[in-house]
Amino acid sequence: MENQKNFLTTAPYKGTRDFYPEEMRLRNWMFSVMRETVLSFGYQEYDGPVLESFDLYKAKSGEEIVERQLYDFIDKGERRVAIRPEMTPTLARMVAGNLRNLPRPVRWFSIPNLWRYEQPGKGRLREHWQLNVDLFGVDTYRAELEILLIADSILKKFGAPQGSYQIKVSHRKLLDSFLKTTLKLNEDQVHGVSKLLDKKSKISAEAFEAEIKPLLNNAQEQLPLIETYLSSTLENVSEIPGIDSESVSFIRNLFRELGELGVGKQLTFDPSIIRGFDYYTGCIFEVFDTNPENRRSLYGGGRYDNLIGLFSKEQLSGIGFGLGDVTLKNFLEGHNLIPDLGRQTTVFLPIMDESLFLETSKLSKELRENGILTETMLDSAKIGKQIQVAEKKGYRYVLFLGESEIQSESVQIKDLVSGEQKSLPRKGLSEILKKDFQL
Amino acid sequence: MENQKNFLTTAPYKGTRDFYPEEMRLRNWMFSVMRETVLSFGYQEYDGPVLESFDLYKAKSGEEIVERQLYDFIDKGERRVAIRPEMTPTLARMVAGNLRNLPRPVRWFSIPNLWRYEQPGKGRLREHWQLNVDLFGVDTYRAELEILLIADSILKKFGAPQGSYQIKVSHRKLLDSFLKTTLKLNEDQVHGVSKLLDKKSKISAEAFEAEIKPLLNNAQEQLPLIETYLSSTLENVSEIPGIDSESVSFIRNLFRELGELGVGKQLTFDPSIIRGFDYYTGCIFEVFDTNPENRRSLYGGGRYDNLIGLFSKEQLSGIGFGLGDVTLKNFLEGHNLIPDLGRQTTVFLPIMDESLFLETSKLSKELRENGILTETMLDSAKIGKQIQVAEKKGYRYVLFLGESEIQSESVQIKDLVSGEQKSLPRKGLSEILKKDFQL
Repeated sequence: MENQKNFLTTAPYKGTRDFYPEEMRLRNWMFSVMRETVLSFGYQEYDGPVLESFDLYKAKSGEEIVERQLYDFIDKGERRVAIRPEMTPTLARMVAGNLRNLPRPVRWFSIPNLWRYEQPGKGRLREHWQLNVDLFGVDTYRAELEILLIADSILKKFGAPQGSYQIKVSHRKLLDSFLKTTLKLNEDQVHGVSKLLDKKSKISAEAFEAEIKPLLNNAQEQLPLIETYLSSTLENVSEIPGIDSESVSFIRNLFRELGELGVGKQLTFDPSIIRGFDYYTGCIFEVFDTNPENRRSLYGGGRYDNLIGLFSKEQLSGIGFGLGDVTLKNFLEGHNLIPDLGRQTTVFLPIMDESLFLETSKLSKELRENGILTETMLDSAKIGKQIQVAEKKGYRYVLFLGESEIQSESVQIKDLVSGEQKSLPRKGLSEILKKDFQL
Repeated sequence: MENQKNFLTTAPYKGTRDFYPEEMRLRNWMFSVMRETVLSFGYQEYDGPVLESFDLYKAKSGEEIVERQLYDFIDKGERRVAIRPEMTPTLARMVAGNLRNLPRPVRWFSIPNLWRYEQPGKGRLREHWQLNVDLFGVDTYRAELEILLIADSILKKFGAPQGSYQIKVSHRKLLDSFLKTTLKLNEDQVHGVSKLLDKKSKISAEAFEAEIKPLLNNAQEQLPLIETYLSSTLENVSEIPGIDSESVSFIRNLFRELGELGVGKQLTFDPSIIRGFDYYTGCIFEVFDTNPENRRSLYGGGRYDNLIGLFSKEQLSGIGFGLGDVTLKNFLEGHNLIPDLGRQTTVFLPIMDESLFLETSKLSKELRENGILTETMLDSAKIGKQIQVAEKKGYRYVLFLGESEIQSESVQIKDLVSGEQKSLPRKGLSEILKKDFQL
């Protein structure tokens, strides 16, 4: 009988991804574009630990997260801890912990990995990364203006063309006034109807009607009013009796100024925008992919008052948004916005002969010290094989340093894209490579 | 009676750190220096999920990690999982999972965060980050040569002066031959004595003697021989009878070639280097801080054969090292190598008057689009207060755009370091800022 060994699986934990160099290059590129954009607005990066106390989420996160999606457990010291499912609780804890020393406005961002126990599916994984951008200490519409400018700039920086996305904006007080004043619903009804409106786009019109009727105590006459509200524009929404006129002017003013700053065409008023989280209290927005095959919310955010109320008596209003890497990647793929990241504009050095290893190493050391990325082979396999490795690793240039080049104080350079090969002087090589080959 | 609210703590979970922008700048700077160095050698970045199956660590990590330090728990789907305490098991899994498609030599690096349940103390935290550098598929000394070159280059890139660190090198086969052939110990004794030698520097000479005697069956005459071995040099170690001569020539050759590549003075042969992990099988090394107040191991690594044996019948030899952020930071602080990262060479825009907000926003938009980081205020507080914010945030330049500047199509620029202030034309401002102010 054969002696069989039970090998371990090489698959990652369900719902997570391995980032091989190819995927990592893509991730790093995505993060660097995000980072560059938010840094250009003066935002500063922060991070916190992946584990937090369970109590933080119990107090701060929604019920669905805490009861069904949280990775929580008891540590070896009997503390109940959880892997972060979202960044806002950590952010709130950190801001509250150093409130008096932070110069305002506080402009912060982070790109944490977050964990939720979900059934993995398209755009939904157990581990994902999310850009979090937050601005604190500005109570006027200018905070909304800046945050929407950034939300727009990020997609522009990725090269997203006009029309590939839409920014839908609404205001919590608008919906509140509609439900409480116009429809005269009580607290429980407001809660139930809000939740239902939030998922309206995901269910059929019949299902929506069937679910909303009991919530309205079967007051059928209210249904057309709801339809009127949901399809209203920024021009006519204030005609609905009881609607909060302040938030209407707020959005009008915001849109006018954003229009002057070049963010006009992609902005839409959409009173059906709800944003699930309970902590939003003011202006809310969602960015949608217009790709017919991926017509979904890319990211969103809004204003929340009193973020730090769990930690302190002090008040602090903030506004922010979160952009996940999985949905962003789907957007970029759908609009063909991912560049070829495989080709490295650097040099690869084969070993022409075993006796030349040290000479080759000295050359690569010199190039690196001059800032030129240089990978070398470590043994003298057949030269054709070594060039194959350079090809597979995505190098454009191969340098050859053989006996005759050492004699004539030169190197040969081969361009793997054009196939061209020529001789370069050994002296001042780094400068030539930088100047003539853009290395 | 007062209505007291129980506030949550703002402290992070025990043994972990919050990275406020100041600490994050330091972390980003440290990681970017590491990254730049390993990228210059052609290494490619990878990453894996923070959670792995418990079985992976049970099979691959040392007993102390699995039984006492692992953050493991049962997920909501009844899988036993663990937060990664080290990166090598993930690395092995990933390399094994794509073995045939990886062009060799495989050169990979990662900077993961790792978790261990430890008693927090100086240089020891529950969450830390660690640069992992690994090279696979090269069986000759040249793999060791490259890895040691990198280990040295990283500290040089941080500006570490000659003499601030020492690289101690040994070989597992040297110790093995000494214990098995010279001392004629059996397997159990070899294991016990190796473990004891590994901690020798941390205990007193008396404690060492008391612990080693029973391991040697009280063969007192072997003690001087052990002392001879531990204090031997690369010149005289081969005089010890039974010592593996191949590994001695291996290290001699390695040192000679590294000497020719500029890594000579910091290299030392040290037969007392053990490296705790069971998976090292060849050359091993440790980098020590020479600072008398922090004389400790900074990082280390070595060669391991058959890294992927748990996943596949195939063989693959590798060599690598891990460098933790906490020990590195202590080293950099001890040698005064951390630059001032607080000062931002970018511009800060106050709002001179409420009516000028939109004009100011257009200017900042223009500067950002030209690649100049620009933070603006969002309301027109007293100008002195706004400049204070710029000071606190570390800005060097403040731009003023008031009514008179708008009239004369100019801006005022103030250098907060020199106190100087002058007028610049509004047209072509970005180019002037880049050229004359290096922005």
